[in-house]
Amino acid sequence: MTQSVAILGASGYTGAELVRLIATHPSLRVAALAADRKAGQPMASVFPHLRHLDLPDLVQAGEIDYSGIDLIFCALPHGLSQALVTTLPREAKVVDLGADFRLTPEGYETWYGKAHAAVELQEEAVYGLTEFNRDAIRTARLVAGTGCNAATVQFALRPLIGQGLIDEDDIVCDLKNGVSGAGRSLKENMLFAERSTDVMGYSQGGRHRHLGEFDQEFTRIAGRDVRIQFTPHLVPVNRGILASCYLKGDPQAVHARLAEAYADEPFLHVLPFGEAPGMGHVMGSNFCHIGVIGDRIPGRTLVVATLDNLCKGSSGQAVQNANLMLGLEETAGLMLAPVFP
Amino acid sequence: MTQSVAILGASGYTGAELVRLIATHPSLRVAALAADRKAGQPMASVFPHLRHLDLPDLVQAGEIDYSGIDLIFCALPHGLSQALVTTLPREAKVVDLGADFRLTPEGYETWYGKAHAAVELQEEAVYGLTEFNRDAIRTARLVAGTGCNAATVQFALRPLIGQGLIDEDDIVCDLKNGVSGAGRSLKENMLFAERSTDVMGYSQGGRHRHLGEFDQEFTRIAGRDVRIQFTPHLVPVNRGILASCYLKGDPQAVHARLAEAYADEPFLHVLPFGEAPGMGHVMGSNFCHIGVIGDRIPGRTLVVATLDNLCKGSSGQAVQNANLMLGLEETAGLMLAPVFP
Amino acid sequence: MTQSVAILGASGYTGAELVRLIATHPSLRVAALAADRKAGQPMASVFPHLRHLDLPDLVQAGEIDYSGIDLIFCALPHGLSQALVTTLPREAKVVDLGADFRLTPEGYETWYGKAHAAVELQEEAVYGLTEFNRDAIRTARLVAGTGCNAATVQFALRPLIGQGLIDEDDIVCDLKNGVSGAGRSLKENMLFAERSTDVMGYSQGGRHRHLGEFDQEFTRIAGRDVRIQFTPHLVPVNRGILASCYLKGDPQAVHARLAEAYADEPFLHVLPFGEAPGMGHVMGSNFCHIGVIGDRIPGRTLVVATLDNLCKGSSGQAVQNANLMLGLEETAGLMLAPVFP
Amino acid sequence: MTQSVAILGASGYTGAELVRLIATHPSLRVAALAADRKAGQPMASVFPHLRHLDLPDLVQAGEIDYSGIDLIFCALPHGLSQALVTTLPREAKVVDLGADFRLTPEGYETWYGKAHAAVELQEEAVYGLTEFNRDAIRTARLVAGTGCNAATVQFALRPLIGQGLIDEDDIVCDLKNGVSGAGRSLKENMLFAERSTDVMGYSQGGRHRHLGEFDQEFTRIAGRDVRIQFTPHLVPVNRGILASCYLKGDPQAVHARLAEAYADEPFLHVLPFGEAPGMGHVMGSNFCHIGVIGDRIPGRTLVVATLDNLCKGSSGQAVQNANLMLGLEETAGLMLAPVFP
Repeated sequence: MTQSVAILGASGYTGAELVRLIATHPSLRVAALAADRKAGQPMASVFPHLRHLDLPDLVQAGEIDYSGIDLIFCALPHGLSQALVTTLPREAKVVDLGADFRLTPEGYETWYGKAHAAVELQEEAVYGLTEFNRDAIRTARLVAGTGCNAATVQFALRPLIGQGLIDEDDIVCDLKNGVSGAGRSLKENMLFAERSTDVMGYSQGGRHRHLGEFDQEFTRIAGRDVRIQFTPHLVPVNRGILASCYLKGDPQAVHARLAEAYADEPFLHVLPFGEAPGMGHVMGSNFCHIGVIGDRIPGRTLVVATLDNLCKGSSGQAVQNANLMLGLEETAGLMLAPVFP
Repeated sequence: MTQSVAILGASGYTGAELVRLIATHPSLRVAALAADRKAGQPMASVFPHLRHLDLPDLVQAGEIDYSGIDLIFCALPHGLSQALVTTLPREAKVVDLGADFRLTPEGYETWYGKAHAAVELQEEAVYGLTEFNRDAIRTARLVAGTGCNAATVQFALRPLIGQGLIDEDDIVCDLKNGVSGAGRSLKENMLFAERSTDVMGYSQGGRHRHLGEFDQEFTRIAGRDVRIQFTPHLVPVNRGILASCYLKGDPQAVHARLAEAYADEPFLHVLPFGEAPGMGHVMGSNFCHIGVIGDRIPGRTLVVATLDNLCKGSSGQAVQNANLMLGLEETAGLMLAPVFP
Repeated sequence: MTQSVAILGASGYTGAELVRLIATHPSLRVAALAADRKAGQPMASVFPHLRHLDLPDLVQAGEIDYSGIDLIFCALPHGLSQALVTTLPREAKVVDLGADFRLTPEGYETWYGKAHAAVELQEEAVYGLTEFNRDAIRTARLVAGTGCNAATVQFALRPLIGQGLIDEDDIVCDLKNGVSGAGRSLKENMLFAERSTDVMGYSQGGRHRHLGEFDQEFTRIAGRDVRIQFTPHLVPVNRGILASCYLKGDPQAVHARLAEAYADEPFLHVLPFGEAPGMGHVMGSNFCHIGVIGDRIPGRTLVVATLDNLCKGSSGQAVQNANLMLGLEETAGLMLAPVFP
Repeated sequence: MTQSVAILGASGYTGAELVRLIATHPSLRVAALAADRKAGQPMASVFPHLRHLDLPDLVQAGEIDYSGIDLIFCALPHGLSQALVTTLPREAKVVDLGADFRLTPEGYETWYGKAHAAVELQEEAVYGLTEFNRDAIRTARLVAGTGCNAATVQFALRPLIGQGLIDEDDIVCDLKNGVSGAGRSLKENMLFAERSTDVMGYSQGGRHRHLGEFDQEFTRIAGRDVRIQFTPHLVPVNRGILASCYLKGDPQAVHARLAEAYADEPFLHVLPFGEAPGMGHVMGSNFCHIGVIGDRIPGRTLVVATLDNLCKGSSGQAVQNANLMLGLEETAGLMLAPVFP
């Protein structure tokens, strides 16, 4: 039986990626598409690559008739979901892809510099890192998708936290990030001519807001304050995050722990010890590849994780969560093989 | 019911693309993979992006047990299929992705400079431009996939030939080609550092062998000699061909003819008059987008067609033909939406 | 003796390219830099690659003291020069890099849809295609730089016009254009994620304003109306234009004419007959490489020309003209070798 | 007075970069070019971007008449210089760009797995990190250019070693590397289609041979064993290295030390505290930009350094050293501004 979804924020890259995934999903169909600034346009004008699909035109979010909608994806710019989700009918489940519901009220205020506008929803929201939160997601009404960097680094590190395997006070995560993570908004430093021959860090020194998720999750799991170092770098690639995580701990033990933790996971693949993945090997897919390498210096370990920020890091994760929330097979519509080359 | 296929030449890009498409195909499974130079390796070593799949290891083509194989894809370097196909059991259907069986014996000798080694197979082979040859393909034992450039330009022009719509003695086709068309072989001019900031024509002046297909097909359809001008140019993109075809003829009539010809085609989309497609809008998919534009000079028409050379231009076309040959739905496994951005 | 220049519009790519060239020019120094929106900033904030230079901060154009300025480069968005140049002191020479002074009053109105605001300056301006206009440029007070596409195609074709060598009613020019030609302004289709895997035509069908230059120049030279077909295509490269020009005429005669015309030109290089240049071979330089190829169809000729749109197509041409206007060696500061790879 | 140089290994990227730099050098001229596999060809066939220069054809190294040659650049694949340099006339000075003479005999054997073939030359050679070794380079007959990674990381760290400013047992250097560092040799993983959408580490875990230089230099300066962690990653850019160095130490003190150390250096630029450079801002130039950022975790410092691997990391450094060895101005021919965009 097909279930109906609405996508709010359909004119951005994560919105388009949701449509791409749902296009070949066996049990979902797109019933409504909203995008305030581009309301009135056919989706094929905004995203010509979706021309072959029979899609509803873009409308204002407020114009949608939500009766008959089983689940709503909110793929809105940061801050807009807080107000919007309160106006949605409680019969519809909601997967939010933005940053509005990821943190506790205190964490939110720390990282976003103001009080949250819908604290009760914030407290109701379930953190959407699927592989670590399946039971809660299955019964949730509102799921908060994780940050794309937050997903990548948690896949690399989360099973290691609170296990006595690594020095939790000395974790350095250096990320290489495809530019689609910045979205479709107009910024001078996102022009092709600026990015195509450049690599540059941003939000360096611990200022990136995804750190709020690491602080929250790792501290909770460890039962003590955990603060990691985290530096993202823009690389001239559309899709992909590759996280190089420098740890103090025994590499073989780290590998064994990750391999065991993910042994039955359909989307998380741990490579043989000593091999590292490449960003290009997960493009367009919901897979995450993870490698563990021992350094020449004893007791130093490098964990490398890579995924597609628009798919497993955002819209693929959202569909995976929606599958659980709607009682579908978790992998439904998500086994697309990566596109290479 | 699942049918079994073998892929010969699985270590090249078109081989990998076949595996990618079959990974989510509802009725096909990969029973054998051959690659002579890399025999003995697991596919995940040769193509790490296919790591999540349960695939047979690479073997020599001669080691395969073909009993139980319904269809064989030959994705071999040019010239190897001629000898190999003669050794395959006649019970298995064959789709050849190379250039060995596309031309008549005379055409082959003209463009490849030597006699064909398996003339009777050459005469048996059906030309695999699916949309124009469905009936013959359905009953064929051996189908010859078209060149990727040949597919693109024929989608742009073939319905116009022999119709009195355009001047068939004055057709200029300027192509922009993603580099994966050159395959995975080692050539200095295919290194990243050589290609990434360059655009350069090749086989200019009418020396590209895909011209053999145009000469053969257009001459046959027109009932008179047709010779087009055709210049491919390498652009720094992995996948995609964009053909800009300069014609003498009425643009509205050309648009009407193409729109009518492709009205019911699931993979060929003609844009509204005056709009032109972009190469990035079909990446990873089996779709071809076609646009028609009138020039400021009366009677001059520009037809632009674009497709993904590895998919619709090669492996996607091959699966589409295999679907017909095996009695499956023509679109089975091929409705994957393009990946953008 | 060093001469002083001011650059108006220094926060755009052509402004930065002027600074780059003047940085190693033996006889010019940058005395003032203006950029209205970024006035008050040091140049190193706007263009960090110029950090090593001792440059004046950006100011408003109106704040500059022009006494002591020998020459002013106007690298402004289209339309702004008309008003501004009238306010500049007539003692200073002016090289305008924009479109304001390229056309006759009638041509301007045809292509820009309104009357020119400074017709007398427009009539005074000398068309800045250096190699064809040296004497007038030497004595000019105001030189109008050509369009980057207009320069490329004129280098390919101009010596052939009015010579009875080619059919002037049947000229097709298909261009591949690096994205820096669009400047640094914020447009969604210029984002990295939109352009990096795409190739797409624009202003197709004869709507590009550089056609005004072709119409004006070729018609004047031929003594009859000449209208060419001209289609630019964006390719994912920062710098470079490659023009593929399809002509009816004898290829050997075309090659001989071009080779003779450019035999003594320091920046224009005609390749041996049958060879074609690549865009990557002129990057960062003031050179233009030109090749001529005969088609398999007798009487059909392909002329390919390539240059760096920011350098020879714009700022390099501007410095070349400034050299002539200031009585310097024409090649001064411009013999930088291309950067490859 | 012009001095004459020969370039051995002129068909590789560093050879071409030497020619590019010498093309506008005021005091050097290229008297001979050798490239064994391509001997007999004109340089413009091997590198069409150098077409405008009047260069000698490529010959075998053994064919060169070295009388009249003041300095020889060896830009050969690793291992070939050892034998070759012993055959060169001792009147000519030599700058070797390869790895043959960088290490002590013991270091060489450790990292290259065999004894050196010319130990007395190895001991004579001066380590060519110009800014730290000027006096010895001025009087040297043989200078060993550094590895490109080794130069980048030493510019970031060398003034900090042995100063008690940072924890020398806990240095993590994560590098992003343009692909031209791999040279022009044919490797499958260097094809455009493999690299253009990928980011991948290599020689991870402390296996990269440039570590030999760090071990040697840092240990000598510190007077104790220093071992750093060092991971290079290929990014889809032609030129550039960006090193992110994670240190334990006070960020302000680190910044002050670097700013002081490089205050008078023409090519090394330390940015204001808290700013980090981008790889695209040094492309085509001999500059290195260095930034220092403090982390949110007290006592953690990020030093970022970037340079062009082919220029400052290799051929530019070689010319800088040659200038010193020949009694020329150190910056002669090297003040070319970076190319951006």
